[in-house]
Amino acid sequence: MSQQQSTPDPALTTLVGLAAYTGLAAFGLLAARSVDAPDLAARQTLATAAGEALERQQRLLALVGAPGPDGAAAVMAPFDGALADFDARTTPSGWAEGLLKSVVGLGVARDLCRELAAGLPDGGSAFVGAVGLPVGEPPADDPATALLAEAAAADGVLAARLALWGRRVVGEALGLVPVLLAAHPPLAALAARAREAADDGGASAQAWLVSRLTAEHTRRMDRLGLAA
Amino acid sequence: MSQQQSTPDPALTTLVGLAAYTGLAAFGLLAARSVDAPDLAARQTLATAAGEALERQQRLLALVGAPGPDGAAAVMAPFDGALADFDARTTPSGWAEGLLKSVVGLGVARDLCRELAAGLPDGGSAFVGAVGLPVGEPPADDPATALLAEAAAADGVLAARLALWGRRVVGEALGLVPVLLAAHPPLAALAARAREAADDGGASAQAWLVSRLTAEHTRRMDRLGLAA
Repeated sequence: MSQQQSTPDPALTTLVGLAAYTGLAAFGLLAARSVDAPDLAARQTLATAAGEALERQQRLLALVGAPGPDGAAAVMAPFDGALADFDARTTPSGWAEGLLKSVVGLGVARDLCRELAAGLPDGGSAFVGAVGLPVGEPPADDPATALLAEAAAADGVLAARLALWGRRVVGEALGLVPVLLAAHPPLAALAARAREAADDGGASAQAWLVSRLTAEHTRRMDRLGLAA
Repeated sequence: MSQQQSTPDPALTTLVGLAAYTGLAAFGLLAARSVDAPDLAARQTLATAAGEALERQQRLLALVGAPGPDGAAAVMAPFDGALADFDARTTPSGWAEGLLKSVVGLGVARDLCRELAAGLPDGGSAFVGAVGLPVGEPPADDPATALLAEAAAADGVLAARLALWGRRVVGEALGLVPVLLAAHPPLAALAARAREAADDGGASAQAWLVSRLTAEHTRRMDRLGLAA
């Protein structure tokens, strides 16, 4: 170790920027669903989930030595506004749709970042350590998922509506992947290396990534008890 | 110490209920102002402030052994809806008014709880330890206050509007104090004991409390650079 702090890998910085920006969005969506939740226990549950999303985001920012709000803003800046179209196209009707948007949209974002991390020089171990969840492993005890699964199980009409809504949200979220890879060459390079490391077939890196994210989404909807 | 965990003082449980409920509201207001903040650094700053408000709330809940969302909900239940009128009467126009609402409204709530804590059998030391701030001591480095002071200093028209808005918000917040004391006898009893402990004049407990909160509000507006 030299006396100077080592400069973080530029690809890591870009990936942390994406993960921190979508993590901040996750915080905001979960916090908003805490505010309009139907009862106090759900308010507390979702506030806690929002707080945990923020803690993950802060651990990721620490990986690239981005101290304070200004450091965080500098790392996230390349992605500022990246979710505006997604948000505009997925305005939820009511609390349950809003919560599903946060679970699905930010689930896809988190999966995307974990998949891309496999293309980092260290195979993503530091990144995954900060996120606290290896690729392909579902959150052991995700309270937002549990709340939604409970609401859907109690109301068949709501469950059918949420299943449709989940398809719309995941479609918009997956549609962002090519846009992000095209706009951020370091992410495209990570995708290519992650695809090589996985060594499973001849698909393009982008097609491979979208199919991985789609499979993970199907498992997520299964956990929710909703048809994917 | 008996083998069974000691039952918390009922007055402490009531006070923690009030502090936890208003703390959850503080979290929600700060998080919402993170979502619509004008830039990424302000978004990060306010998300962090919201996360800290939630951590304080969780420390308070731990004081009365209220584990998990259901325990938290049980302690907060007596105050469910207590801020509905306040919220309906203080709908902000724009981000800066919304942020001032959170700083003023929840500043008053926090001051109220710290003042009442002085009426607890232990003089409130455990409560104040969890909140992390003795009565009369301003938050050393409150980022929401700093953001607002900066915005007001840069725009005289905004500063004048915010000064008016601050008076309206504090009026509504102080108007809640008699309502809360009347509806929750343990809080009225705490106010009476806190007033005795302070031993400063012949005012009623309620009048004494409101004058203390008003003085603290004036200092808060001074820190913001706004006319109280």
